[in-house]
Amino acid sequence: MSAAPAPVDPVDPIDPIGPIDLNADLGEGFGRWVLTDDEALLSVVTSANVACGFHAGDPATMRRVCELAAERGVRIGAQVSYRDLAGFGRRAMDVPPDELAAEVAYQIGALEVFARAAGSRVSYVKPHGALYNRTVHDAEQAAAVVAGVRLAGGFPVLGLPGSQLLAAVAEAELPPVPEAFADRAYTAQGTLVSRREPGAVIHDPDAVVARAVAMATVREVTALTGEKVPVRARSLCLHGDTPGAAELAARVRAELLDAGVQLEAFA
Amino acid sequence: MSAAPAPVDPVDPIDPIGPIDLNADLGEGFGRWVLTDDEALLSVVTSANVACGFHAGDPATMRRVCELAAERGVRIGAQVSYRDLAGFGRRAMDVPPDELAAEVAYQIGALEVFARAAGSRVSYVKPHGALYNRTVHDAEQAAAVVAGVRLAGGFPVLGLPGSQLLAAVAEAELPPVPEAFADRAYTAQGTLVSRREPGAVIHDPDAVVARAVAMATVREVTALTGEKVPVRARSLCLHGDTPGAAELAARVRAELLDAGVQLEAFA
Amino acid sequence: MSAAPAPVDPVDPIDPIGPIDLNADLGEGFGRWVLTDDEALLSVVTSANVACGFHAGDPATMRRVCELAAERGVRIGAQVSYRDLAGFGRRAMDVPPDELAAEVAYQIGALEVFARAAGSRVSYVKPHGALYNRTVHDAEQAAAVVAGVRLAGGFPVLGLPGSQLLAAVAEAELPPVPEAFADRAYTAQGTLVSRREPGAVIHDPDAVVARAVAMATVREVTALTGEKVPVRARSLCLHGDTPGAAELAARVRAELLDAGVQLEAFA
Amino acid sequence: MSAAPAPVDPVDPIDPIGPIDLNADLGEGFGRWVLTDDEALLSVVTSANVACGFHAGDPATMRRVCELAAERGVRIGAQVSYRDLAGFGRRAMDVPPDELAAEVAYQIGALEVFARAAGSRVSYVKPHGALYNRTVHDAEQAAAVVAGVRLAGGFPVLGLPGSQLLAAVAEAELPPVPEAFADRAYTAQGTLVSRREPGAVIHDPDAVVARAVAMATVREVTALTGEKVPVRARSLCLHGDTPGAAELAARVRAELLDAGVQLEAFA
Repeated sequence: MSAAPAPVDPVDPIDPIGPIDLNADLGEGFGRWVLTDDEALLSVVTSANVACGFHAGDPATMRRVCELAAERGVRIGAQVSYRDLAGFGRRAMDVPPDELAAEVAYQIGALEVFARAAGSRVSYVKPHGALYNRTVHDAEQAAAVVAGVRLAGGFPVLGLPGSQLLAAVAEAELPPVPEAFADRAYTAQGTLVSRREPGAVIHDPDAVVARAVAMATVREVTALTGEKVPVRARSLCLHGDTPGAAELAARVRAELLDAGVQLEAFA
Repeated sequence: MSAAPAPVDPVDPIDPIGPIDLNADLGEGFGRWVLTDDEALLSVVTSANVACGFHAGDPATMRRVCELAAERGVRIGAQVSYRDLAGFGRRAMDVPPDELAAEVAYQIGALEVFARAAGSRVSYVKPHGALYNRTVHDAEQAAAVVAGVRLAGGFPVLGLPGSQLLAAVAEAELPPVPEAFADRAYTAQGTLVSRREPGAVIHDPDAVVARAVAMATVREVTALTGEKVPVRARSLCLHGDTPGAAELAARVRAELLDAGVQLEAFA
Repeated sequence: MSAAPAPVDPVDPIDPIGPIDLNADLGEGFGRWVLTDDEALLSVVTSANVACGFHAGDPATMRRVCELAAERGVRIGAQVSYRDLAGFGRRAMDVPPDELAAEVAYQIGALEVFARAAGSRVSYVKPHGALYNRTVHDAEQAAAVVAGVRLAGGFPVLGLPGSQLLAAVAEAELPPVPEAFADRAYTAQGTLVSRREPGAVIHDPDAVVARAVAMATVREVTALTGEKVPVRARSLCLHGDTPGAAELAARVRAELLDAGVQLEAFA
Repeated sequence: MSAAPAPVDPVDPIDPIGPIDLNADLGEGFGRWVLTDDEALLSVVTSANVACGFHAGDPATMRRVCELAAERGVRIGAQVSYRDLAGFGRRAMDVPPDELAAEVAYQIGALEVFARAAGSRVSYVKPHGALYNRTVHDAEQAAAVVAGVRLAGGFPVLGLPGSQLLAAVAEAELPPVPEAFADRAYTAQGTLVSRREPGAVIHDPDAVVARAVAMATVREVTALTGEKVPVRARSLCLHGDTPGAAELAARVRAELLDAGVQLEAFA
């Protein structure tokens, strides 16, 4: 896994007539602590990335989010993470591949119980935080995550287009699901601008909404340097853990529907 | 659940011709720490109570134990616990019923992934340590454990004859599986002598073996006060976390087979 | 410690001219999660019960709260708890006395580092949540908490008048500091009405303020059943983890000052 | 801290008449799990690196180890780690410097309570596992560890000669204490051979003893490639967590004494 595979391109990147999925992180409280407005976001998204206990998400919260998601016809996905409650899964860890694979499978299995009890199923997997970021470039950890996904039965995996993670998913003959971020700046090459650079995060709600609509209709985005770049995404990721996030997410949903976009979870 | 139900008697207590199951706690290490001799015990038992991460048991260990158990035809059970790694699940906790049910289901689901990946299934549930002891008398927590077992799909539950736990299991129309302990002293009423009293634990290996054979053949045990009392058990619990435990367990197995006892996991 | 000691009465209960302390729980976030409005509450209280990592409180938060408290001349106390992040320390645990004492001392020592680094010191200890409630009646755990406090060097302990905890503190020749709750209903005997009973918590802000003033001036409170009962308290506990809590706390402080009450931490 | 400082050389590297310290990791169990033979090792070493709860070490164990160490006149050091019980602190983590500094200080403070209760003091700090390895080369994390050590009051720090850690310690005007490993292979440059390379760990007890004596007397070691290289160490690290470790450590001690080496903790 040491040589970097070519960028993955599993879906037609510029298909203005296809449906789009909306995903957000949910259930990211822990015990007494609440973070995401699960109730509101479950009226917006088509796919819920449910925290599984390693960076956030206690069993009672997982159960409740699965019940709400099932009631509203929202797909349930396992948001898997490094084992790091103190750091909210935001600190990259050098976890040996065998341990990481087992940790990923453990989390998926734990969530599956609540999804099934609610009459649904776990339908996909998405790594959280530092694990998401690390598996963009780290082929060994990407392969370990995919090994964990297979151990748990095999699921579509949501990730960044061109990432090592989606390459490993494709190699394992599982469905890679590329996603885009309406509130993140893109380079002319179509990759995300690093959060360390100025302008990396779009704070203006109007801009976020306009970008979401462009991503879902003409399937392109304006790069930080001004170029139009194609967006290869079957899902749009909405953030739910900041003040006003649920309102912005609702507005994105409404304007996508107004623009004639079909909102639909991936198969 | 406040009134204490009558003692449960789900199997014919004195049926010398029935098979007996041998169960032991396994996978009770955590990361760097090892406790149980899983390799040796899996050559002895017919049912493995696998720790699920709340009192012991990391994902990589759970995976390995499930693989070994599946290879050797040993049944896999979920050994569920209070969330208490620091106390090894030995400190009773006043967990609200909804939380406890969700915690139990979470643990079962996590183990199921590894059992299935190994070509097996979780076949039963057994509470560990303080949760086992508390649900002997505490009807509310017993009901919560059973609610968690049902949430996870419904499983036979291994427990103490006459316990609130097995009563709640029967009430939920799940199979209660009563077990006996060859290394514990019994009262004339057939209950366990409290560990706080002298003589509660039998340390002499010959005595343990003789009691196991009596429990499995004539289905009785000599009480601390000298009376013969009937033993209502479909399974015998062997301890695996003390020095010499694996050797003693192997000897119990050998002498049960010599005595013509059929060793077989419960259905 | 098996016989219940007589109620403790370490300060003159009806001394309208003595100063009163205001205490609140602070630093009760963990990593990404925030709960208490530490900034606002540190402008109100004279004593800060800082969470020490067992029910809440990560090291970086502990450090920051200690720095703010020291800047504003607020006393720093160690808010010690059962080891239970998932349950926020609200689930009573049967922790053996030796373990509990060591856990209490560990938490005090960890906080001491940040208090000293900020130019202050840990000045007292207050048990949190289930440990507070349990040590009202459980003499064994009360003694264990006090053993932990002594192990850490010996500190005043904030608690409920008449509790086993304050009795054990007095017995150990450490200063017991009785506190009262302006937002809790009292019985005619001067004890707290159980939270399970209707009317146990006072939600009307005007009533809370009026009761705080009565507690701090005429040193009495109206029981749920209408009687006036004396209040034996050197400190008033303000709650900081509910919406609007910081505003209510600020109002209590302002009206106490208006009533001529001297606000001052205990020695 | 981005430019790599020059190797640190705080003690005369070839002084055959100076005393040597023996250090080992102790108290590395957690609750039910035991790892190190603390009782035996405390008869061998002059400095005890006591686990502080982040990779191992529960409060009751910390207390007991401090009591034993104080009784036997062994120095107590804080063995600080990433917060990673599941990985025993062996998985490098990208902890932001402020969090890491606070985590280090927290651990030192917690241990200080038990050291003082036993009539001793924390006398030094040594990072454990992945934190030790990472701070050999990572100047940012090295500086964060030193910031934590200063926050806790300032202590000598035990580490690898030439490491970023010891450079940051010297820069902070705290005493760096270089150590050597009798059971590890060295390069011709005097650095440790990576564990990934063959021959990195010396398993032959006779060889380990001979190397320890050479390190403590003529202050040199034979590199893997045959050259004699000087050893710049004030302390020798003995491993205590493998079978036979305590016996080997005792033999090293005995043969050092036979060779006329003075065993003495650093000041």
